[in-house]
Parts: sequence; C-alpha cells; structure tokens
Amino acid sequence: MGVVVPISEAPRGNGITALTELCAPGMKRVNELILSKAGSDVEMIPEVARHLISSGGKRLRPMLTLAAAQMCGYEGDGDIKLATSVEFMHTATLLHDDVVDESDRRRSKPTARMIWGNQASVLVGDFLLGQAFKMMVEVGSMDALDVLSTAASIIAEGEVMQLAAAKNLATTEDEYLWVINAKTAALFSAASEVGPIIANGKHEERTALKSFGTNLGLAFQLVDDVLDYSGDAKDLGKNVGDDFREGKITLPVLLAYRRGTEEEREFWKDSLEGGNNDDAQLEKARALMAKYGALSDTITRARHFGAIAHDALGPFKQSPVKNALLDVVDFCVSRVN
Amino acid sequence: MGVVVPISEAPRGNGITALTELCAPGMKRVNELILSKAGSDVEMIPEVARHLISSGGKRLRPMLTLAAAQMCGYEGDGDIKLATSVEFMHTATLLHDDVVDESDRRRSKPTARMIWGNQASVLVGDFLLGQAFKMMVEVGSMDALDVLSTAASIIAEGEVMQLAAAKNLATTEDEYLWVINAKTAALFSAASEVGPIIANGKHEERTALKSFGTNLGLAFQLVDDVLDYSGDAKDLGKNVGDDFREGKITLPVLLAYRRGTEEEREFWKDSLEGGNNDDAQLEKARALMAKYGALSDTITRARHFGAIAHDALGPFKQSPVKNALLDVVDFCVSRVN
Repeated sequence: MGVVVPISEAPRGNGITALTELCAPGMKRVNELILSKAGSDVEMIPEVARHLISSGGKRLRPMLTLAAAQMCGYEGDGDIKLATSVEFMHTATLLHDDVVDESDRRRSKPTARMIWGNQASVLVGDFLLGQAFKMMVEVGSMDALDVLSTAASIIAEGEVMQLAAAKNLATTEDEYLWVINAKTAALFSAASEVGPIIANGKHEERTALKSFGTNLGLAFQLVDDVLDYSGDAKDLGKNVGDDFREGKITLPVLLAYRRGTEEEREFWKDSLEGGNNDDAQLEKARALMAKYGALSDTITRARHFGAIAHDALGPFKQSPVKNALLDVVDFCVSRVN
Repeated sequence: MGVVVPISEAPRGNGITALTELCAPGMKRVNELILSKAGSDVEMIPEVARHLISSGGKRLRPMLTLAAAQMCGYEGDGDIKLATSVEFMHTATLLHDDVVDESDRRRSKPTARMIWGNQASVLVGDFLLGQAFKMMVEVGSMDALDVLSTAASIIAEGEVMQLAAAKNLATTEDEYLWVINAKTAALFSAASEVGPIIANGKHEERTALKSFGTNLGLAFQLVDDVLDYSGDAKDLGKNVGDDFREGKITLPVLLAYRRGTEEEREFWKDSLEGGNNDDAQLEKARALMAKYGALSDTITRARHFGAIAHDALGPFKQSPVKNALLDVVDFCVSRVN
C-alpha cells in the first residue's frame, strides 16, 4: 500500500475524534431517539433493531447531519430527528443488503437474518424506513423530505442496478461509480444537505454540503473497497476477502481485471463470476492487485473525491465544526495504511 | 505548473500523431464529405461553414469515431458519415456558442458572427445539425441515432445550464463537472460509442468506449480551462485570459475562489461577476491561482479522468489503434507544460 498523503496541510488531523466530540450532546439525543423509535409492541422489532443498532458503527451519517446543521448556525432540535432518520435509513439498508447478499456476518457478529431469518430482516428494515419517514414529516421541512426521499429511491435503484450488474467484470469504472454513488454517496450527500436545509442556510451552503457529502461518500466507499483486500481491515469489523468471496465487483477488481492479461482475466472470471474463491484464489487476487497497483490506484481515485469534498467546504468560515468535517475527509481517505 | 507525469509507462508517447496517421485515409473522406454536405444553393451557407471548417481544428472528435470503429473491426463506410455528423454537431455548437458568448474571435480569426452576423451563425448551425441528422439516418443504425441525438440534447441542456449558472461563483465542482460533461464530454463520448455500435461490437466494447470518450472529454476540457490561464495557450489559438474576460467560471477559478480569503473572494466577484477584468486584474487572478495551486490541482483532477479513460480501454487487445487512442489521453492531459 502506498503512503497516504494528507489532503490538506492545515493543522488538523484528529481523525473522527473532533467530530465525535462536537456532536456528542446531539448524538446522545439521537441514540435515545433511536432506541425509542425502534420500540414496538411487536417484540421482534426492537430485538432485531437493537441487534444491529448496538453493533457499534461509527454513526458517521447522523453526525454529518448534526455537524452540517451546526455549521449553518442551526439552533433548533429538528436536526436530531433528521439525523435519526438518516441512521434508520442506513440501518434499513444494511438489513436488506444482508438478505440480498445472503451474508452470515457483519462486524464480526451474526447478521440479523441468521438469528431471526430473512423475512424478519426485510420487514424490520421496512419498519425502520417507515419510522424514518414519520420523523421527517414531524420535522415538517418539505425540502428535507424531498432530499431524503430522493436518496431513499436512489439507494433502492442502486441496489437493483448492483443486482443486475453483479458479477459482471465488464462493468466500467463509470458504471461502478454510479453504483457506489447510489449505494453510499447518496445517503452521505442527503445527510449533509439536510443540515443547511433545516438551518435555512443559503442556497450555496446547500450545494456545497451536498457536494461535500457526495464526494466524501465516494471516497469512503472506495477506501472500503480497498480495505476488503488489504491486511488492515480486521479491526474495522470487516473480514479481508468478504467482497471476493461474495463475488463483488469493486474498483480494485475492475482495475486489476482491465490491466491484466487474457489469462489473468480468465482467473478473475473463474473466481468472481464462477465462484472459485477459496483462500488460495484470494491470495492470487491480492497478488494480481499488487502487480497492477490496483489498490494504490483505487486510493488515488479516492483521494480525488476527497480533494473535491475538501474544496467544497471552502466558502465556509473557519470553525471547529468545519475543521472536524475536513478531518473526516482525511480520516476516510487515510484509514488504509 | 507542475511536471506532468505520463499516465502509463507503455512505450507510446506520440501525442496525437499516431491517431492522425491511422485515421488519415478515413479523414480524407470525412473532409470531402464535410465540404460536400456543407454545400447549398443558399450561398451564405457554404461560406459560413467553410469559414469555420477551414479554421484548422484538430478534428479530434471524428477521428475518435473512426478509430473506435476500427478498433472493433469495422470494415464498412458508415463510420465516415457518422464521423462527419459528429464534426457537424461540433461545428454547430461552436457557431451557436459564439453567438451566446458574443465572442469576437476564435482561433485567432474573427468569428462567423462578426462577418455574417448572429442570425446567419444561428441558422447555419441549425443547417449543419440538420445535415448531421440526415447523414445519421442514411447510415440507418437506430442505436447510433439514439446515442448521437441524446448527446445533442445533453449539449443543448448543458448550454442552458451554463447560461443559468454563468458568473455564479457559488457553483460547486460537481455542478461544474456536469456542465463540462454536457459541453464537451457528451460529444466525445457519443463520438467514441458510435464506433462499436456501427461495428456491431460487443456490449462491453460499447460501454468501454463510451466511458473512454466521457473521461477523455472531461480531462480535455479541464486542461483547456488551465490553458486559458497559463502562458502556453497562444499556439493553440486561444488567447490567455479569454475565459476571464468573458466571466467564465471554470475549475481553476472555482478552486482559487473556494480556497481564498474573504477579501480574495471579493476580488473574484468583482472581476468575474462584476466585469472588472482588465489585464491588471487578469495578472492578479493568475497570481491567486498560483498561490492556491489552482492550475496544478486542476491538472491533477484532469489526470484522474485521464486515468479512467486509460483503464477503460484495458479489455481491448493490443493494437496500433488502441495505442493511438491511449496516446491521445496522454496528449490531452499533457498539453500543458
């Protein structure tokens, strides 16, 4: 793996810590709301929801909403509900994804579908999505509803596209970027954009934060793709090789495939499209990625989007929350090392 | 300006020469068709058309069509008509652009509107567009018609968007990329994609060449933006500072604006939105771009798209035409130095 150069020379570099600290009071309320809104007399719902919610994600998305609102001077409490909606949308996607991908484990724990079954996972996901929309309606901003419901439909569209494009090594990089825009960046973008919306921010604050979220999301997902093949992913709860074993076509694969010889391309077809994906095959995949610089070039691509996210915040005045958001960009790009 | 690192280590590096040589027989026929199809009993039409057509562009777009068809094994002569259509679409856009931008000069010659007036420029543009569509229909490929007519509508949509976004420094980088996708990359993309279409190429050849064209176009336009502020643009027929004097918001401007201080942002508003754009202001603009690395970072962004274009051609077998297309990517990214 190449050395990761920080995107900016600014004296920041606190990773995600500064954002976590700045958002701590708000996130305490978000977490309370999560637990209360995941409650139901149907006993299985809170059980399933809590299983996933307690599994210890970074809660990056709701923090983006809180931070974006704060950066635009918001002082009400609608951001708490919107942030919770964003996290519910994310949780619903994970529940549904695990069913679609037939995943056994997530963050080193059994997936909900392994404990409660596929039907429960699908339906609890739907329930959380419903709760998310109810909270958005309570907040009463038609613009925020528009942005978040558009994101929800893009996410679903992306899942269908990924299903259709699955195991297709002929996927172009542009098509793949579209998929990860839908899968990841759309929600990062919406989470960031609803901040200025609820804060009644200027139009350019909205577009800037929307662009920030989109590009942060793209960078985040590309680095995630790299982590799945690099040795350092264990402490992030991902097992190295998960994407490979599931036959997922990600950018490191696409680059290695496109740069490879005819014979190497047969290897990729055999392993990813054909399902011949044991540990020896995984090692060969990693060797081919090293040969063609596929992981380091994926990081270079991620850095491009990180740089755009960084510049997107240019017009905002210096502030602790702005610095914390810039730190998150660096964190996302540099969590591989 | 930073040192431009070639995108690939492959022993190529002939700039646009290899492509020009490979396409020479086809381009001879394209040029004949251009002259014949720009003919009309309405005397003004061939006059205006020839003025622009003889002004000595590189004819990069029609060469993309010829090369893409050739790379997919095409042996008929429909590519000649499609390439001519592509060049006519481009010429029509230039005629209309000069009217919209009220430009006096293009490639160091007076624009058609300065000689024959705005109405003639608009109408001859429409005539060329009509001729382009007639030729596409003659070729008879519904898919090619679909791709090129979609491109035509995206180009028009982009012009309207640019009109609306003109002189707006709050434009985000994503929005700007959308504009240059419409303005430049859509036609590069369509020009490349109709090659495999007419050659009855495989689906993945179509998507690969579409992606190649799009990303080449984005890289090309970003470097064009840089040339307008760097000292080396004279021999390319552009005058340094044209974009500045026209108040065009391009990526180097957006980066310098977003990275600047409040005071510097006032300068950009005054000069680009306010029209205070004499030579002293241009020098200040260039100094601010240097201060914030806006030109070199625009080249870095261009290189990102160049790298994607490069990888897009990965699956094609080694051949002189493939190498020539890869050379064009390097040429586009490295014409600043």
